[in-house]
Amino acid sequence: MTNSTTLAVAQLGPINSGESRESVVSRLCALLQGAADAGANIVTFPELALTTFFPRTWVEEQEDIDQFFESSMPSPATQPLFDLAQQLNISFYLGYAELTEDGRRFNTSILVNGEGRIVGKYRKIHLPGHSDRKDAPFQHLEKRYFEIGDLGFPVFTDRGRRISMCLCNDRRWPETFRVASLNGAELMLLGYNTPVHNIHWQEPEHLRMFHHRLSLQAAAYQNSLWICAAGKAGEEDGSVLIGGSCIVSPAGEIVAQTTSTGDELIFAIADFDLGEHFRRNIFNFAAHRRPEFYGAITDPRPGRVTDADVE
Amino acid sequence: MTNSTTLAVAQLGPINSGESRESVVSRLCALLQGAADAGANIVTFPELALTTFFPRTWVEEQEDIDQFFESSMPSPATQPLFDLAQQLNISFYLGYAELTEDGRRFNTSILVNGEGRIVGKYRKIHLPGHSDRKDAPFQHLEKRYFEIGDLGFPVFTDRGRRISMCLCNDRRWPETFRVASLNGAELMLLGYNTPVHNIHWQEPEHLRMFHHRLSLQAAAYQNSLWICAAGKAGEEDGSVLIGGSCIVSPAGEIVAQTTSTGDELIFAIADFDLGEHFRRNIFNFAAHRRPEFYGAITDPRPGRVTDADVE
Repeated sequence: MTNSTTLAVAQLGPINSGESRESVVSRLCALLQGAADAGANIVTFPELALTTFFPRTWVEEQEDIDQFFESSMPSPATQPLFDLAQQLNISFYLGYAELTEDGRRFNTSILVNGEGRIVGKYRKIHLPGHSDRKDAPFQHLEKRYFEIGDLGFPVFTDRGRRISMCLCNDRRWPETFRVASLNGAELMLLGYNTPVHNIHWQEPEHLRMFHHRLSLQAAAYQNSLWICAAGKAGEEDGSVLIGGSCIVSPAGEIVAQTTSTGDELIFAIADFDLGEHFRRNIFNFAAHRRPEFYGAITDPRPGRVTDADVE
Repeated sequence: MTNSTTLAVAQLGPINSGESRESVVSRLCALLQGAADAGANIVTFPELALTTFFPRTWVEEQEDIDQFFESSMPSPATQPLFDLAQQLNISFYLGYAELTEDGRRFNTSILVNGEGRIVGKYRKIHLPGHSDRKDAPFQHLEKRYFEIGDLGFPVFTDRGRRISMCLCNDRRWPETFRVASLNGAELMLLGYNTPVHNIHWQEPEHLRMFHHRLSLQAAAYQNSLWICAAGKAGEEDGSVLIGGSCIVSPAGEIVAQTTSTGDELIFAIADFDLGEHFRRNIFNFAAHRRPEFYGAITDPRPGRVTDADVE
């Protein structure tokens, strides 16, 4: 296989409140080292990989929530991860809560190259959940704590690959992967935090893992993409996360997946010629797509019969 | 379950060249009767359900290909199916090759209601394959024999359900289901003819059935749709078709599937409240979609790096 890149996904077990950034970063560094030892070129870490998944908790005061945000990147606490990437010449994707200089807050991921330099940034567009439901045992307050991302779905080149990024709920929306693919992506990296329980209704629990995989597999197949998906797993501050981190090929098949609910590495030697079969034939966009009939997708006020309700 | 409709899918075994329309229609009538006997309200038949899948064959002369087209619907040969639908008060979806009065040719499906009246028409938009590859053992000449459909993805109401239609390759394109869903669909009916072999490259054969199911299941989940998918199956004029007809719930789960490669009926008592859980929460389009970032999807000349090649 001459056209390959070795991909790693680094799942994280829980990060409970009170665990220091330094402790978390030392876990990330151990995983990065393990990935490099196995010959990996690119490592994907989860969404909000430096703290607990704090959007599950209602916090009244802004200053109490800002402890979960990073006002610089790298920061003193995360610098060792950047230094290690440079030392090992390995690239990584990392999700974190971003506080900008002008006081805006985003659910963000970055792509850091083998020189320890940030070469790409993404800010989450599909924020899930609701804005206020104080009576629930767990909440999903991303719409309260974050602004909608403002960077679109850009594509960055690293290791000779055209790489796009997204975060968690973005993966359920086919538009995410389609736009990235139209922008030239051949590899999608994503982190997520998915609770076992659906807060919205009494959904059968097996559907959570099924929908996670279904969305990734269909997106990989329909867009000729390699996908690396890294989750947090296990019981975090009393809420159980699904785990199930995986690597999906452009054929839509899961080629590697985690088996635990803790810190764990998985790998795939990814053949990037595989995507070309799909990209040139059944999903040859120039030959087969019919954008003239897709207008409803970009209509800002679509005529869907049932909507509203949430928020 | 108070908000239910009983859905049936009628898979067809092969229709070899030389089998008369009358013979095929009698098979369709037997399936329609069986569906009615089991209490079904709506029956889905395959794509090009009156003839062999003729786009696999290169035919030089237009008059030789026109034998596979219907210049009226109902026609004398298909009238018994319409009459039986009226007698049984059952609706059906039927795929056929349409020749219009002004000489245009489409890969078409119709929705016929319980009064035997055509209440909806769809013309296939995503025509797959190539336009000329005479040296191949089997071909896929839909682009040669059909024009691109000109009706969009409309939604029709029958039995109190908002119903959309598509055909075969349409199901691999997430835009199909998204546009239908934005137009208000809660039920998608589709017929298909999918050969076991991918003519484009040496694809592992198990992927054909996997991609069929993956596309349907993701589309159902991501658009809160019930989906009925009816294929032809078995060896038809020397080409083997995959079968695998199925009914998929809005949770993305296959709730009924065929077990044979012949004429076969499957059923589901479909709870249309199930889709509402998804439609109102995780896939609440008004709350969560971000059309302002989807512009590439409707761009008529997207900047995808690798395209062209086919045709």
